[in-house]
Amino acid sequence: MIKPLAVLNKSINQQVIVELKGKRGYRGILDGYDPHMNLVLKNAEETHENQVVRKLETTIVRGDNVIYISP
Amino acid sequence: MIKPLAVLNKSINQQVIVELKGKRGYRGILDGYDPHMNLVLKNAEETHENQVVRKLETTIVRGDNVIYISP
Amino acid sequence: MIKPLAVLNKSINQQVIVELKGKRGYRGILDGYDPHMNLVLKNAEETHENQVVRKLETTIVRGDNVIYISP
Amino acid sequence: MIKPLAVLNKSINQQVIVELKGKRGYRGILDGYDPHMNLVLKNAEETHENQVVRKLETTIVRGDNVIYISP
Amino acid sequence: MIKPLAVLNKSINQQVIVELKGKRGYRGILDGYDPHMNLVLKNAEETHENQVVRKLETTIVRGDNVIYISP
Amino acid sequence: MIKPLAVLNKSINQQVIVELKGKRGYRGILDGYDPHMNLVLKNAEETHENQVVRKLETTIVRGDNVIYISP
Amino acid sequence: MIKPLAVLNKSINQQVIVELKGKRGYRGILDGYDPHMNLVLKNAEETHENQVVRKLETTIVRGDNVIYISP
Repeated sequence: MIKPLAVLNKSINQQVIVELKGKRGYRGILDGYDPHMNLVLKNAEETHENQVVRKLETTIVRGDNVIYISP
Repeated sequence: MIKPLAVLNKSINQQVIVELKGKRGYRGILDGYDPHMNLVLKNAEETHENQVVRKLETTIVRGDNVIYISP
Repeated sequence: MIKPLAVLNKSINQQVIVELKGKRGYRGILDGYDPHMNLVLKNAEETHENQVVRKLETTIVRGDNVIYISP
Repeated sequence: MIKPLAVLNKSINQQVIVELKGKRGYRGILDGYDPHMNLVLKNAEETHENQVVRKLETTIVRGDNVIYISP
Repeated sequence: MIKPLAVLNKSINQQVIVELKGKRGYRGILDGYDPHMNLVLKNAEETHENQVVRKLETTIVRGDNVIYISP
Repeated sequence: MIKPLAVLNKSINQQVIVELKGKRGYRGILDGYDPHMNLVLKNAEETHENQVVRKLETTIVRGDNVIYISP
Repeated sequence: MIKPLAVLNKSINQQVIVELKGKRGYRGILDGYDPHMNLVLKNAEETHENQVVRKLETTIVRGDNVIYISP
């Protein structure tokens, strides 16, 4: 048994996939998070329906749009 | 009488089906949860209208999109 | 005068009808609940526009999708 | 000056009309409520665009779908 | 400088216009409120796109649908 | 560095533009606010897609519909 | 590991890109924030589908519409 935030903690400095509402997604290195699942990603790619639409050096993704986070 | 979180607790290490808003679903081994019903799934399959669309070794599913969880 | 949660409490081990947002419904034996109206149903049938679409031995229904619960 | 919950309290055992989001409504005897405006109705009729679609002996209506309650 | 709830307080026993999400509105005498902006209106008219569709002697309008309240 | 509520505080008695969800906007003199960003506007004009649709002497705008406020 | 709010703090007086729900975006100098991710932007440009639609000297953007903030 592992808490969801503990999985985030173990994923720091690793590549994660983040899927948001509205067909939007991010791939990047997890650099931080808080208990609301707000995330800091580094070297992130934003995807829309699996197409890369943007590259972002650092980005804060708000947790309440998140559907899943996959390390 | 059993509390919803106690059902989750009894389902740790077992296969669960999770149905989310927006016709999205997950099947996988329940590896963790928290009081917001955020879930950790292992060996998960993501489904869309009952078609498998993705396989995810580990995934954190945010609780506020959940409609039901079925052990 | 009776509190909503007291009605749930009196309905434990009885058949209830649960209507959710999005034309989805459940019929089953109420096995548990919590103050957020998260529910545990046993021997549940999921309905969509009054058609049975699935049978679920045990299911946790998240309270924030509930429109009404009827014992 | 009267608080909204005090109006509910005065309406116990009286006929109320409840209008929900999504064109759904209820008419019934108010049997209980809580501070979230979750309601217990007895001898309720569910209406959809002013047509009676269902009769429910007892029903718990979740407060966060309520638009107005009229004694 | 005046707090929003203080404006409501000064409007007790006066005619107010309440605009809700979904093109719905109310005109009536403000008889009460609480900190969530749940309102009690007397002699209220419900409007839909500026047409009067219903008259309600007393009505509790749930605050979370409110867009604006105008004394 | 300035907190958002401090910007509101400095804008009291000044003209502000408020943009809400659903293409609705307000222009008026900021007369008050609270920590939820509920606002009191005086001599307000309501706009819909930049057309003035209504004039309101005093209006309480509920904070949770606000997209931005611009002094 | 860095907390999301710490990234905001480090971005004070720097150019940020803010993406909101509903295809709306802002570019501007971050002048402030609070724990809800309400933001104060200076010399902001509002964009809609990447077209500049408005310039705003100072603007308070409400946090609950934010999808991501990128320094």
